[in-house]
Amino acid sequence: MTSPLRLGIAGLGTVGVGVVRIVRQKADMLAARTGRPVVITAVSARSRDKDRGVSLTDYAWEDDPVKLAVRDDVDVFVELMGGHEGAAKDAIEAAIAAGKDVVTANKALLAHHGQALAETAEAAGQVIRFEAAVAGGIPVIKALTEGLAGNEITRVMGVMNGTCNYILTRMQDAGLPYDEVFAEAEALGYLEADPNLDVGGIDAGHKLSLLSAIAFGTEVDFDGVELEGIQRVSIDDIRQAADMGYRIKLLGVAQMTGRGLEQRMSPCLVPDDSPLGQLQGGTNMVVIEGDAVGQVVLRGAGAGEGPTASAVMGDVCDIARGFRLTTFGQPASELAKAKRAQSNSPAPYYLRMSLKDVPGALAKIATALGEHGVSIDRMRQTRHNKEDAPVLIVTHKTQRAALDQAIEAMGRTGVMTSEPVALRIETV
Amino acid sequence: MTSPLRLGIAGLGTVGVGVVRIVRQKADMLAARTGRPVVITAVSARSRDKDRGVSLTDYAWEDDPVKLAVRDDVDVFVELMGGHEGAAKDAIEAAIAAGKDVVTANKALLAHHGQALAETAEAAGQVIRFEAAVAGGIPVIKALTEGLAGNEITRVMGVMNGTCNYILTRMQDAGLPYDEVFAEAEALGYLEADPNLDVGGIDAGHKLSLLSAIAFGTEVDFDGVELEGIQRVSIDDIRQAADMGYRIKLLGVAQMTGRGLEQRMSPCLVPDDSPLGQLQGGTNMVVIEGDAVGQVVLRGAGAGEGPTASAVMGDVCDIARGFRLTTFGQPASELAKAKRAQSNSPAPYYLRMSLKDVPGALAKIATALGEHGVSIDRMRQTRHNKEDAPVLIVTHKTQRAALDQAIEAMGRTGVMTSEPVALRIETV
Repeated sequence: MTSPLRLGIAGLGTVGVGVVRIVRQKADMLAARTGRPVVITAVSARSRDKDRGVSLTDYAWEDDPVKLAVRDDVDVFVELMGGHEGAAKDAIEAAIAAGKDVVTANKALLAHHGQALAETAEAAGQVIRFEAAVAGGIPVIKALTEGLAGNEITRVMGVMNGTCNYILTRMQDAGLPYDEVFAEAEALGYLEADPNLDVGGIDAGHKLSLLSAIAFGTEVDFDGVELEGIQRVSIDDIRQAADMGYRIKLLGVAQMTGRGLEQRMSPCLVPDDSPLGQLQGGTNMVVIEGDAVGQVVLRGAGAGEGPTASAVMGDVCDIARGFRLTTFGQPASELAKAKRAQSNSPAPYYLRMSLKDVPGALAKIATALGEHGVSIDRMRQTRHNKEDAPVLIVTHKTQRAALDQAIEAMGRTGVMTSEPVALRIETV
Repeated sequence: MTSPLRLGIAGLGTVGVGVVRIVRQKADMLAARTGRPVVITAVSARSRDKDRGVSLTDYAWEDDPVKLAVRDDVDVFVELMGGHEGAAKDAIEAAIAAGKDVVTANKALLAHHGQALAETAEAAGQVIRFEAAVAGGIPVIKALTEGLAGNEITRVMGVMNGTCNYILTRMQDAGLPYDEVFAEAEALGYLEADPNLDVGGIDAGHKLSLLSAIAFGTEVDFDGVELEGIQRVSIDDIRQAADMGYRIKLLGVAQMTGRGLEQRMSPCLVPDDSPLGQLQGGTNMVVIEGDAVGQVVLRGAGAGEGPTASAVMGDVCDIARGFRLTTFGQPASELAKAKRAQSNSPAPYYLRMSLKDVPGALAKIATALGEHGVSIDRMRQTRHNKEDAPVLIVTHKTQRAALDQAIEAMGRTGVMTSEPVALRIETV
C-alpha cells in the first residue's frame, strides 16, 4: 500500500466544506483513482465552533493557518481562505518553506504574488496548483497547461465572473435597472465583501492574468489588464443591444500581438446566438485558441461549493498521482516579462450618449467622430425627454485609440449631457 | 539538461504529419514546457517515397512498425496507423513488451482490446495515452480522468463523429436528401474506408465506450453500446424536427443506473437553441456531468491534422513531464465488468411512418400505441400521395421498451407501408 496523501485545509467556508465532504465520502474512489489514500489530517478556520454540517472531529485543529501549513503530518497545504495579503500569503510561503505542496483557489493572491510564489516553490521543488482559482469547476488550467501544451496559444477569452453575468442576464430577463439587480445580488450573497472586485471586473481580471501567464509564457501581469467594470451598463444598453441581436457580457480577452501582450476585461456586445451570448447566470465560459487545435470552448459552473471543490480535488488527485508541474506550465524563472500593448485590434463599437436637445447637436457629434476617422454604421435617436435626447451610435470597425480621441472631441462640443458609454462589439 | 524524450511515429497520414510538424517547429516551446527536449528518432509508414510536405531525413525509417516500436532509441511509440487488428495491435504490444510508453489515436483498437492492452501495460509499468482517440482536439480524456477525478460521474454525452454531424447539418442547411449528402461527403474524403464506421455510429460508439470506462470505472464494453446509425434519417425528418424547434444529432449517452450501465449512440432530436443543437459541421461536443461539478461542456474540432496532432502532443508532453497514469484512470485490473442495462429512462419520441391511405389506418396506429401505454402528444399527417400518407407522431415520455412493443403491434395492423423511424427527443 502506498502512503496516504495528507491534506491540511485552511479555510472552511463553502469550498473548504465541499472539499471535506468529497474526501470523507469518496475515500474509496479517490484511492482507486490515485493509487493511494487521500486523507485530511488537520484543518484551520476563523471559528472552531461554527456548525458547518460536516464532522471535523477526526482532524487536528489549528487556529493559525501558518501553523497548519508547516505541520509534520501535512503533505499538501490547501489554501481556501482568500485575500491577497496577510494570512493566506504567509501560510503559503510557510508551507513551501516547510516542503509542502500547495493547492489554492486564491486568484487575487496569485494575480499579485504568483510570480514570486512560483519562483520560490520551484526553487524548493514544490508545486502550486490553482485550478479552482479560474472558472470554478471547469478544468481550464489543466486544459491550457497540459492538454493543449503542443499549441502556441493565440488567444484566450472568457466570461469568468458569475456574479457579473448573473447581474447582466437578470437585468435582461427581468427588465430591471442595474441598481436594483445589484441590490438583489448583494442580498443573495453573490457579491464579494468588496463588490467592486466583482462588478469592477477585478476578480475576472485576476483570472485572465493567470490564464495569460500560462498561455503566453509571460510573468503574471495583472496591472497590465485594461479593466472596465459593468457599473455603467444600463438597462437601456441591454435593451438596445438586444434589439440589434446582441447581449452584453463582461468579457476578457488576452492575446499576444506583434506589439506585445493585450489583456482586457470589459463589458462587450456579443451575438445573442453565440455560445458566449447564450451564457446564463453564474455559468462561466472560456475560449482557447491554439495554432494546432483551433478553437476549444469550455463551459461550466463558475462558482459554488461543488464545482470549486471539484477543481481543488482535481489538483489534489494530480499531486496524489505524483504529477509534478511548474505553476504556470514552464519554469517561473524563464517566464518573459510581458510587454504591455494597448488593445488596438479594430472592432465596431456601441456608443450611447445623451445630447442637449438643441439644433445641430447630432451633427456636431457626427463631425467629431468623422474627424477622428470613426465612421458611423447606424445611428438612432431613441426618444425625446424635455431636456436631453438619448442617442445610440454603432460605429464601423475602429481602433479604440481613435474612438477615445473622438469621444474627447465629442466632449469639447459641449452638446453632451453625460459621459458616453462605449462598448466593444465582439463577433466571436 | 534532462535527457530528450524520443518518439517513434508509426503512421504518417494527416495526423502523423501534423505531429512531425509540431515537434519540428515548436522544439523550444516543447522543451520549455516539459523541461526536456522532445524529439523524433524514427518513423514508419506504408510508403517511404510519398511526399508528405515535411522532411523526414533526420529520422530513421522502418518499414515494419513492430521494428519501430522496439527500437532502442525510442521511448514513446506513437501509433497513428489505425485499424483494430493487425499491425497497430502487434506494434503496440511489442512496444509495451519492450518497455516503451504508447500514445495512440486508435479508438477502434482500444474499444476492442483496450482492457487487455491496459492490463499488459500496467503490469509492465508502461502507460498508454489516447487523448486523440476521442473528440479530436478537445482535451476530454484529460478532463474526465484528471480534472474531474474528484467527481462521481453521473452521465457522459456527446456528439463525437464529425462526419455524421457534417451530413446532418448539410442536409438541413442545403435541404438535400441523405444519399446526395452522403455522396458529397464521400467525394470530400470525409468518410472512413468503410463508411459504416461513420454513418453506422460505430466510430462514435467506440469513443463512447472509452469515455464510459473512465467515467464509471468499468471495463471497456463496446459491444454493450446500443448502436443506431444515421442512415435512415431523411430530409423529411430533419424538416419536421426543425418545424418543432429541434435538430437531429448523432448523440451518445452513457450513464450508470441502478440496473447497470446504459450506453447508447443514436440519432436524437435536441432543441435547436441548445449547445448540442447549435453544433455545426465537424465540431464535436462532449458533456460531462459529475456529482460535485455539475455539468461541464467541452467543444472543439473533432478531427483534422492540427486538432488531432494537438491531442497527441498533449499526451506526449504529459509523458515528457513524467506524468504516469493508468490507461483508464484507475488500475485496469480493478475495473469492474460492466453490467449492461437497456436504456429505459423515459423520453418523448419522434415517430415517422407511412400509412396506407385507407379508412381507419390512423386509428389502428393510435390504438396500438395506446395499448402499450404510449400516449400521443402531437400527431400530424403531412401530405397525401396517391398511395400512402406520411404520418408524424410525437409521443409523451415513454420507455423505449414500451415503444418497441407498440411499434411491433403497429406492424401487425398491416396499415404501415414501411418500417417507422423512431428518434428519441433529448431535452439536454
